[in-house]
Amino acid sequence: MLHAIVMAGGSGTRFWPASRTNLPKQLLPLAGPRTLLEDTVDRLAGLVPPERTLIVTAARLVPPIRALLPGFPPAGLVGEPCKRDTAPCIGLAALLVARHDPQATMAVMPSDHVIRPAERFRDAIRQAAALVEQAPERLVTFGIRPTYPAEGFGYIQQGAALATAAGDAPAHAVARFREKPPASVARDYLAAGNYLWNSGIFVWRAATIIAGLEERQPEMLARLRTIAAAWDGPDRDTVFAAEFAAIRGISIDYAVLEQARDVAVVEAPFSWDDLGGWSAVARQQAADERGNTVVGRHIGIDSTGTIVHAAGGHLVVTIGLEDMLVVHTPDATLVADRAREEAVKAVVTELENRGWTEYL
Amino acid sequence: MLHAIVMAGGSGTRFWPASRTNLPKQLLPLAGPRTLLEDTVDRLAGLVPPERTLIVTAARLVPPIRALLPGFPPAGLVGEPCKRDTAPCIGLAALLVARHDPQATMAVMPSDHVIRPAERFRDAIRQAAALVEQAPERLVTFGIRPTYPAEGFGYIQQGAALATAAGDAPAHAVARFREKPPASVARDYLAAGNYLWNSGIFVWRAATIIAGLEERQPEMLARLRTIAAAWDGPDRDTVFAAEFAAIRGISIDYAVLEQARDVAVVEAPFSWDDLGGWSAVARQQAADERGNTVVGRHIGIDSTGTIVHAAGGHLVVTIGLEDMLVVHTPDATLVADRAREEAVKAVVTELENRGWTEYL
Repeated sequence: MLHAIVMAGGSGTRFWPASRTNLPKQLLPLAGPRTLLEDTVDRLAGLVPPERTLIVTAARLVPPIRALLPGFPPAGLVGEPCKRDTAPCIGLAALLVARHDPQATMAVMPSDHVIRPAERFRDAIRQAAALVEQAPERLVTFGIRPTYPAEGFGYIQQGAALATAAGDAPAHAVARFREKPPASVARDYLAAGNYLWNSGIFVWRAATIIAGLEERQPEMLARLRTIAAAWDGPDRDTVFAAEFAAIRGISIDYAVLEQARDVAVVEAPFSWDDLGGWSAVARQQAADERGNTVVGRHIGIDSTGTIVHAAGGHLVVTIGLEDMLVVHTPDATLVADRAREEAVKAVVTELENRGWTEYL
Repeated sequence: MLHAIVMAGGSGTRFWPASRTNLPKQLLPLAGPRTLLEDTVDRLAGLVPPERTLIVTAARLVPPIRALLPGFPPAGLVGEPCKRDTAPCIGLAALLVARHDPQATMAVMPSDHVIRPAERFRDAIRQAAALVEQAPERLVTFGIRPTYPAEGFGYIQQGAALATAAGDAPAHAVARFREKPPASVARDYLAAGNYLWNSGIFVWRAATIIAGLEERQPEMLARLRTIAAAWDGPDRDTVFAAEFAAIRGISIDYAVLEQARDVAVVEAPFSWDDLGGWSAVARQQAADERGNTVVGRHIGIDSTGTIVHAAGGHLVVTIGLEDMLVVHTPDATLVADRAREEAVKAVVTELENRGWTEYL
């Protein structure tokens, strides 16, 4: 049976002031009328039913997600007591799924990416599940064909091609995982043509990833087993809090994937954007004739290439702006040179330093 | 007896979104903790008592001004039913003052200028009143020593020097009034050294300005007399509305001053700023070490020469801004290149065109 694990614990700071501690990126409608998390759950329709879907998030985000997805089974919403990267998240989800379905195959996906069209995504997951069916110990990843020499992504080098059925996306054995490269190396990868961006979307059997953690992260897995054993009892929260806190945070890529024996990569047949910042959000929107992209009420006088994002009926007027970013929220407004978009993360640090926690 | 006429009908659009139809510049605290109108009234303390002060404003601004100045005599607050420039405003005030004090001298002043120190201002008004005492038909204006070749001001050319007492400011007969000049002419004026900016502050006898209007604007004066005659009766509002609307709007400069026989100009011994826009407001404030001037909560990352004005506890964060203007209000935010400050006026027009009157 195919299960879905939606990772929704991100606390990205690149979208401040629109994103906050209790309103992270995945809970914002950054690529349409619905939030990225809603889009992610909707995308599974017809592939995995909600009762076989786990949303793993931070404990503090459980109430807003419950409010956002009132029809989603409460038991499928897991709130981590602290942040420990993807390996503990995925390991625990694998154990919880395997309790009732030891043969389970699980599709693991972030909740804050833009993926279109949904049908292509579902087809690709089905293809990956078939690759796992052929070789049960195989770990399948999805790679994105690079469009520019990005320094901010991990890369996957394609090895030998795997057999595919008609209509399937290209699939290869993974030759090697590569860390986020410097620009010159990223350019080489792009030129070589056999490197893909690592999308962070995976398909594998729960038993396989559990075995991988058993081999490479035995202490982590022991603690996760303790949590899973207490899951249906009265001590779940206490055990979860104590054991999870004691785990060292590490990504599933470092913990298992990069050293695993049989890893395949499917070249994503869908369009993908991880929305790394406001400029990425703007790419998802139609720009006006002067290259401005606007959410909310805006009057622009001689403004070009500017991103405006205003909540509610708030009016933003821009005069003579060039390649700027204006984000308005009820209690805080950001005005930035788009070339300095990365510095938004520094704002969050500065707010913490000043103790202005009401804006976090 | 000396009377004061405070002209508070301005509906300046240069400070949008901080200024609105019902909250014009003079009702904003742009140069300190109190509003410009409050500062103007305070400045008269010890010179003219409130019972000899008239504040002439737009009818719609009477309630907010009454709220702002609860101790001010209600009878001293005149609300014009429509906007008709300065001559009708000053003419009516002269008639109202002359009813009870035919020998009255009146000091006429805008309510939205920054003038410091107040004591120097009062001394200058006393000096002007003495010049009127010497020659009852004299009209006295105040000129500001130019600091740059401004195109936005009218100029007054100084003629023959008038006798002054020790400690008095220089006083001259007015040789000629000059319209707002082009830059090259303004530079010539500055170089010549005998041109002053026209401050819009005047001292004269009520009877003299009435006589001037009688001679140059007889129809206007007739209508103003009709209004003054009805002032204490039951039909004041009806008569005021009908007669005032029928008057052609014109400035006192055009209507009387520029053709009058005996006009003197006193060189203002006080610092003066008409606050023509946000950059002028910023000049009144202390800048930080990067040249930013801030009202409200601000975090600046690599921002220079930027003006931030945020109401309430709203936080404005700027990243990589250079010579920009950010004005936040609860329902509208302006972000502009400071070099394009003049275009703020166009925003108000655009709001009218779009019918977005809630922001006006």
